[in-house]
Amino acid sequence: MKIIQGGVTAAKGFQASGIHAGIRKNKSKKDLALIVSEVPAQAAAVYTTNLVKGAPLSVTKENISNGIAKAVICNSGNANTCNANGIEVAKEMCSMVGKALNIDPADVVVASTGVIGQPLDLEPIANGMDALVASLSADGYPAAEAIMTTDTKPKEVAVEFEIDGKVCHLGGIAKGSGMIHPNMATMLVFLTTDCAIDSKMLQKALSNDVQNTFNMTSVDGDTSTNDMVVVLANGLAGNTPIIAEGAAFDTFMKALNTVTVALCQMIAGDGEGATKMLECTVCGAADLQTAKTAAKSVICSSLTKAAMFGADANWGRVLCAIGYSGAKVDVSKVELHFASKAGKILVCENGTGVEFSEDLAKKILLEDEIEILIDLHSGDAKATAWGCDLTYDYVKINGDYRT
Amino acid sequence: MKIIQGGVTAAKGFQASGIHAGIRKNKSKKDLALIVSEVPAQAAAVYTTNLVKGAPLSVTKENISNGIAKAVICNSGNANTCNANGIEVAKEMCSMVGKALNIDPADVVVASTGVIGQPLDLEPIANGMDALVASLSADGYPAAEAIMTTDTKPKEVAVEFEIDGKVCHLGGIAKGSGMIHPNMATMLVFLTTDCAIDSKMLQKALSNDVQNTFNMTSVDGDTSTNDMVVVLANGLAGNTPIIAEGAAFDTFMKALNTVTVALCQMIAGDGEGATKMLECTVCGAADLQTAKTAAKSVICSSLTKAAMFGADANWGRVLCAIGYSGAKVDVSKVELHFASKAGKILVCENGTGVEFSEDLAKKILLEDEIEILIDLHSGDAKATAWGCDLTYDYVKINGDYRT
Repeated sequence: MKIIQGGVTAAKGFQASGIHAGIRKNKSKKDLALIVSEVPAQAAAVYTTNLVKGAPLSVTKENISNGIAKAVICNSGNANTCNANGIEVAKEMCSMVGKALNIDPADVVVASTGVIGQPLDLEPIANGMDALVASLSADGYPAAEAIMTTDTKPKEVAVEFEIDGKVCHLGGIAKGSGMIHPNMATMLVFLTTDCAIDSKMLQKALSNDVQNTFNMTSVDGDTSTNDMVVVLANGLAGNTPIIAEGAAFDTFMKALNTVTVALCQMIAGDGEGATKMLECTVCGAADLQTAKTAAKSVICSSLTKAAMFGADANWGRVLCAIGYSGAKVDVSKVELHFASKAGKILVCENGTGVEFSEDLAKKILLEDEIEILIDLHSGDAKATAWGCDLTYDYVKINGDYRT
Repeated sequence: MKIIQGGVTAAKGFQASGIHAGIRKNKSKKDLALIVSEVPAQAAAVYTTNLVKGAPLSVTKENISNGIAKAVICNSGNANTCNANGIEVAKEMCSMVGKALNIDPADVVVASTGVIGQPLDLEPIANGMDALVASLSADGYPAAEAIMTTDTKPKEVAVEFEIDGKVCHLGGIAKGSGMIHPNMATMLVFLTTDCAIDSKMLQKALSNDVQNTFNMTSVDGDTSTNDMVVVLANGLAGNTPIIAEGAAFDTFMKALNTVTVALCQMIAGDGEGATKMLECTVCGAADLQTAKTAAKSVICSSLTKAAMFGADANWGRVLCAIGYSGAKVDVSKVELHFASKAGKILVCENGTGVEFSEDLAKKILLEDEIEILIDLHSGDAKATAWGCDLTYDYVKINGDYRT
């Protein structure tokens, strides 16, 4: 298993493109992305659990109900959510792609991200379709750029792995900076692989993986209406198709997890206004759910996030967040370290503070990737959650997002 | 029922004081408060559900287990939480009060608020005890000042009401600005009444009331380790003691609710860094829990809070927060207005946006008390939650609280 250059086109037989079609006013921002597999791909997806669901999600769900997709269309700048004509507009986007690529519109995955509750104008998309198809290439970067909203950088990653002697690839792109607190799925993530795997096993792999990756990531506690993770597997690596659990499935799961964890770290580190990526690992828990609940509570605590912004080793806020998490924890056993590449420092053990060097703590917390390491000393279960600090810029970005 | 001047000393037979004892470095900030009833009072309290509990809460719980208290001691500047000697220190505070007032230390309620995990030095408290007792008076304001931490103003309110021809009073003081997301109780709230009521009925009234008041208030989603609401009833109004449900109990409940709602509004409006108080009312819900869950989710949404700071009528974020709240809501029926003393505007109906005047919406949202009015059109249940906007100053206050 090794990490390689590229993202959504790292796997054989995938092309992608991204252009500025005019959905967003700023002409320097791309706003329309297309991903195409040269052969029909097995498809699986997970979606937001928000009761308010973006129209594109319903259309995608219907389109991949047969486990097959050939293309993905995604626009930024408008979420096509809470609009009376949302379904109609999402279907029309699929029809445009179907016509341009000469494929069945029902083999198209459609996604939208941006402001909620403003009708999405189809004209720029119709006008841009020829250019979008003409610029399809083996470079996935323009597509990663085109799905960004308040993201400050494109997010892509890919891995290479072997299954029964065949070299396989799995890569993906993600967007997500605000309204990040996925539940069952995340912001928009598009994954592609040339590994041959049946759509049912693909869905199983994805559904399991998101529980420990995207669902453990939070920027602001707001679960979006448009969260979606889609994976397309076109089988061009030539391995014996994975149709059941076993060693090949395990290898695939590991490849998937390598890519999704990297994307979670990128999403968290690029959280709206963030200056730091926070990674909270809880070990020594009585069971997995306890570890996950405690880790996620720490990552979601506004007070902890603000303290990290200020590089303040205010460990009482971390303990407080464990205490109200709902997890059954014996707080008198909790041990807590802060760590970064500048070092590691013990700040609390047996649930009470210990003397520590404020200077070293400051130095550690001034880094841009911080680890919050918690040992509950009550068992063997372990979980990690990803988040970011709470900054002035988060408020600035969200105080006038629409205007 | 009428609102009167005063707070924790509005009821007959209560005196209070507040001084700077030296727990806080800033000499212009009071940090030690005392409340005394001239006769033994019936006592009831609710506490945080955080598993990490401040030591003073355990001592208070034990002290009022017999339903009786005579005095309250409270310091700010240090929470006396997560310290190895916390219980000992809290007990010693009760002993000091017992000695100074010549009462049983077990009749003292003790509370602390401030930073977690730093040993509380008893010396300033011991040295200040004489001055604290000497300055006891019918003015409750200094006590309201002395329990403040990041609060920008003291919070007190009182009401006058009649029970079987006797004039009764109920008043209180509160502190709370950050780490405000109570569950079963809230930040520190001390209530006093001269109404004669048995401690069991007093507990019943308080436990019921907090469900709809303090537990529906959130500044930052962080449930404190030291939340506590205490009510003392000394019976000096001379009414027939309330020992069961009935008209007198209902009148008492109404008086209590008038005081606690006013304190919730003060706490929310003085949330850390807040420029606006937000009041979200959900009506037309199928049941009370649905209304409460939806209202609290809106009040807790970072994105909604930031939009309110920017006076941005970004109603999609409100709908999004209802959608992920966990409440069973038919989103296609949701109707949403923003309102303030500048007017009222419909922004969404049947779950989709309507055209509205951005100018009027801006004017409404620039006020400092905003109502978010949601009708689910699915029943008769209704609930209100209180919160505030998310601002640069919240980040500033919490980025360097300890230093």
